[in-house]
Amino acid sequence: MVCPFCHLESQDRQRVVLENEHCLFLQEPQEVLIGSGMIIPREHRETVFDLTEEEWAATFSLLKRAKALLDEVYEPDGYNVGWNNGSVAGQEVFHVHLHVIPRYADEPLAGKGIRYWIKQPMNKPGR
Amino acid sequence: MVCPFCHLESQDRQRVVLENEHCLFLQEPQEVLIGSGMIIPREHRETVFDLTEEEWAATFSLLKRAKALLDEVYEPDGYNVGWNNGSVAGQEVFHVHLHVIPRYADEPLAGKGIRYWIKQPMNKPGR
Repeated sequence: MVCPFCHLESQDRQRVVLENEHCLFLQEPQEVLIGSGMIIPREHRETVFDLTEEEWAATFSLLKRAKALLDEVYEPDGYNVGWNNGSVAGQEVFHVHLHVIPRYADEPLAGKGIRYWIKQPMNKPGR
Repeated sequence: MVCPFCHLESQDRQRVVLENEHCLFLQEPQEVLIGSGMIIPREHRETVFDLTEEEWAATFSLLKRAKALLDEVYEPDGYNVGWNNGSVAGQEVFHVHLHVIPRYADEPLAGKGIRYWIKQPMNKPGR
């Protein structure tokens, strides 16, 4: 299967908003997670654990630039920043992407973090 | 208020499992998110955006060591890795901590990632 993040020209909705030597910050139109985007390496890597040291450093540099931009445009009240690694963890495109998610005080789910649902007792593994 | 992650000696349940020059990997007993832990900088920083370059690099080094350890001990099927930044995003301790969350195929919520709930239409900000 062709990797959609190796072939951004095939993606109608993804727009490259910021970039540096090793990484891109992408955004697509959002109905709910207003302003959210993704940082991806230019090279194909599957998960965060596969990034090179240089790509890891470039991710941080771009993350701080993305935050500055999002702060100015959307004025969020906080951010979730993270990776899903593996389909069991919710990864759908197997070219690593760091989700950068502005959060807002006027969201119904304001105050709920990335672990809130999965840490509920009902999610205990069946072992 | 005294920062609990600056004063780990005050924390009965948190155990330092791995460490390097700038960071610690902590675990505490878990009922649901089996094997999950956190990577924190030794110095007090509030959010991921406040880390130094050296702390960011040390975070990656420790993340890969933590994954190797967790793979061996718990044999998970994937990982969520991420930060809550700001109380609106679910941050409860204001000393930055990277959640490292093994995920398992036999969890009821297997396949659901860190955005699954917050991206639902019901969570649209009220602006």
